[in-house]
Amino acid sequence: MVEKKKTTIILFSGDYDKAMAAYIIANGAAAYDHEVTIFHTFWGLNALRKEELVPVKKGFMEKMFAKMMPRGADNMGLSNMHFAGMGPKLIKNVMKKHNAVPLPNLIEMAQEQDIKLVACTMTMDLLGLQQEELLDGIEYAGVAAYLADAEDGNVNLFI
Amino acid sequence: MVEKKKTTIILFSGDYDKAMAAYIIANGAAAYDHEVTIFHTFWGLNALRKEELVPVKKGFMEKMFAKMMPRGADNMGLSNMHFAGMGPKLIKNVMKKHNAVPLPNLIEMAQEQDIKLVACTMTMDLLGLQQEELLDGIEYAGVAAYLADAEDGNVNLFI
Amino acid sequence: MVEKKKTTIILFSGDYDKAMAAYIIANGAAAYDHEVTIFHTFWGLNALRKEELVPVKKGFMEKMFAKMMPRGADNMGLSNMHFAGMGPKLIKNVMKKHNAVPLPNLIEMAQEQDIKLVACTMTMDLLGLQQEELLDGIEYAGVAAYLADAEDGNVNLFI
Repeated sequence: MVEKKKTTIILFSGDYDKAMAAYIIANGAAAYDHEVTIFHTFWGLNALRKEELVPVKKGFMEKMFAKMMPRGADNMGLSNMHFAGMGPKLIKNVMKKHNAVPLPNLIEMAQEQDIKLVACTMTMDLLGLQQEELLDGIEYAGVAAYLADAEDGNVNLFI
Repeated sequence: MVEKKKTTIILFSGDYDKAMAAYIIANGAAAYDHEVTIFHTFWGLNALRKEELVPVKKGFMEKMFAKMMPRGADNMGLSNMHFAGMGPKLIKNVMKKHNAVPLPNLIEMAQEQDIKLVACTMTMDLLGLQQEELLDGIEYAGVAAYLADAEDGNVNLFI
Repeated sequence: MVEKKKTTIILFSGDYDKAMAAYIIANGAAAYDHEVTIFHTFWGLNALRKEELVPVKKGFMEKMFAKMMPRGADNMGLSNMHFAGMGPKLIKNVMKKHNAVPLPNLIEMAQEQDIKLVACTMTMDLLGLQQEELLDGIEYAGVAAYLADAEDGNVNLFI
């Protein structure tokens, strides 16, 4: 039996375009039969947030964080300053015109392709995010689990 | 026959300093006899734009993108906010003083060292960039070609 | 004798949160018995600056750079725009509340775990940084040394 190739991506960034790049590479790798993991940490966790407000108990600072951070992939901003003004809206129009797949659908596609979506528990704690607020069907782990995957990875990226 | 080591870099960023880092690593790896590919996607495509305006037919949004994005390596901005004011000009003066190689020359050097410069066709389409607008001698490919290179890569980076 | 696994990280970013991510991964990898190198280049060099002002002779531009760049890990800013206003102070309060380890301590921990901290001599020269201004016990090298480490690396990241 041939062992599967492995791709791991740390998604640190909370930018719409960077998350798109991460999910396009991940979906591509899964299509080429790689075993793929996306490990979401820091602002990258926002891609996994549910769009609706989930009523959970939080301290003051955690509430503030929760308010300031975008809820879900569709609400994330762009990495590129020049476009920050019109930004995501423009990109989404252009994407529609060119039949490109929007980020929320790329995430769905990843889940259908059995890409392992992991939320970093340490930074969830730091940013006050709770499991109820994140998408269903994802896993929760720390840096040790990431390293166990990545040390046998063929393609390891930090985005 | 010993197989060559392989380095692949995804250049996503449109920042002058990040592109410099990418090209310095790439040129170094080529000098150490690696087979090297730089895969330009999203804002990283700007490093491959010709400086002169190339007359091509574009839709409205594509024209706007083309106008807002820097034409070529020499016109890219800096990643670091504190320097955004004086930014690239200052860096270029400092580089001249220290005999560092400017980005356009690093790109030339890469082409002379047979580093494979690839433009991501999917994001070219998204940003409305056409082949005539990009440097001669580069290749055009998608995520599948990237993965084929990267899965045997010794050093794979996302910049 | 089994060969040790290897992790190499290029820390290009001068952002507090990105440097935290780099050092958390590095310390984790060292705990799992990897041989770990963090190669600090461009703004990532700021993480290695001593907090106190070190009197060294500099030209005008180098003085200006030295003034504009943060002196040491504790003074670095955040990557995420939304938090740039309150930013690092808020993050540090949250970290204290959640017993997370602050960046300067993560760097100390890395040194205790024999993680190789390298400063990129080419960008030190560019930014006018001198060895006296950086932490004790670090190494000085260029892109060739990085590649020698990374080409046998299991996990290679650019942060």
